[in-house]
Amino acid sequence: MDGSWRTGDKPMRVFIVHAHHEPTSFNAAMTGEAVKTLRSAGHEVVVSDLYAMGFDPVSDRRNFTTVVDPNRLKQQDEEAYASKHSGYSAELQAEIDKLAWCDVLIFQFPIWWLGLPAILKGWVDRVFTVGHAYGGGRWFDGGVLAGKRAMCALTVGGLDPVYSEEGVYGPIEAILYPVHRGIFAFTGFAVIAPFVVYGPNRIDDAVRADYLDQYRKRLLTLPSAPTIPGPVMADYDGFVRKKPQQNAAALNK
Amino acid sequence: MDGSWRTGDKPMRVFIVHAHHEPTSFNAAMTGEAVKTLRSAGHEVVVSDLYAMGFDPVSDRRNFTTVVDPNRLKQQDEEAYASKHSGYSAELQAEIDKLAWCDVLIFQFPIWWLGLPAILKGWVDRVFTVGHAYGGGRWFDGGVLAGKRAMCALTVGGLDPVYSEEGVYGPIEAILYPVHRGIFAFTGFAVIAPFVVYGPNRIDDAVRADYLDQYRKRLLTLPSAPTIPGPVMADYDGFVRKKPQQNAAALNK
Repeated sequence: MDGSWRTGDKPMRVFIVHAHHEPTSFNAAMTGEAVKTLRSAGHEVVVSDLYAMGFDPVSDRRNFTTVVDPNRLKQQDEEAYASKHSGYSAELQAEIDKLAWCDVLIFQFPIWWLGLPAILKGWVDRVFTVGHAYGGGRWFDGGVLAGKRAMCALTVGGLDPVYSEEGVYGPIEAILYPVHRGIFAFTGFAVIAPFVVYGPNRIDDAVRADYLDQYRKRLLTLPSAPTIPGPVMADYDGFVRKKPQQNAAALNK
Repeated sequence: MDGSWRTGDKPMRVFIVHAHHEPTSFNAAMTGEAVKTLRSAGHEVVVSDLYAMGFDPVSDRRNFTTVVDPNRLKQQDEEAYASKHSGYSAELQAEIDKLAWCDVLIFQFPIWWLGLPAILKGWVDRVFTVGHAYGGGRWFDGGVLAGKRAMCALTVGGLDPVYSEEGVYGPIEAILYPVHRGIFAFTGFAVIAPFVVYGPNRIDDAVRADYLDQYRKRLLTLPSAPTIPGPVMADYDGFVRKKPQQNAAALNK
């Protein structure tokens, strides 16, 4: 996946998980542009439009057709078993298959309360399983999904300065940190810098058109777009960075 | 709400939003201890056990009994209208009422993917509305819910060092930042330092008992427990901190 895609290369397989309830939203425009742009360039695109699908984001026994312990729900044990015995509900298995299929995963969403809309968070809670996304000592650069890339494409309500060091919400990197580190990097994805649209309801048509133009360019350079560095497990002793003095201090605090 | 609670003071009204699917989990033990401890001390406690309630975390038109624009769902417009015209579904209005009632809000949850479980994130997406939680230029220290306190009480899978500056997940403060800043502080809550239980499945009964003992102490000092500073709007020019040079730079970048 390194370097820009060139005509004649194998098509990229792009999986867009779209989480907005309004078909005329700017999020919908972005996903529409992505599908058109990528397919025109010879790539393959699959979209999970979570609201349109009526996706259920609540994670519990409904995820499984198998049962390890009927008396106590230990999610990771149930997932490890279900991953080995085709034990997922049909709608989850379909999402798990799309995740395995893709080269690039895109989360398309509006920031709600500085986080993912619940329908998208729950898609992660349910679809990223022991066996198909992590487990067996495989994480970060050695993760189950290593070799793939992932990106957040999002809208935020306010304009740019509000999401700066001096803004009330702080930098967008701090807001997206749990998604980048905890979801993408942890499972092995290279984390592409987010594509952020600031205040789509506060800008005019020309600025919106410019955002879509920039987004098209980003989409065609997904294999080479800059990434956010994540933990490299060779630097770590277990889950803690190998710096003997600091490490010992942390363990004994 | 400043200072410790003393016998004879008005009882605290504590609202626990509980988000775990397993009744024998450590999260359930913590909520059980909280109810017992607080009621024994004369306080009032209400629990929303989201899994037990079958709470639906998906936010869209299902939130409302009123409609402003049937052709395009603009969530904030619908909320502003619904807040003025009793336009929420019954199960949402019940939660909105509990939020208004409480002095202290506690989120009790396991970290999933470095974030809130979707059922809890969606509770926020749906219950924190324009009119009842923000809007009309009221936010942060001047927020609609100013005067109340809020706290995350949570379990994380790993032990303490993993959530340090040297750990793969980084500090718990960075992980909880979007919740503290974007949900609690934004709406006016004073943000109590989180109560974090590290690796409840990796520790023995004595350590678990010690955690519960510490938690009881925290519960009885909720009015005086240390808080995490948030933005003070008098320091801001709109949503950007008043530092003329830096502010101008940010606006013109």
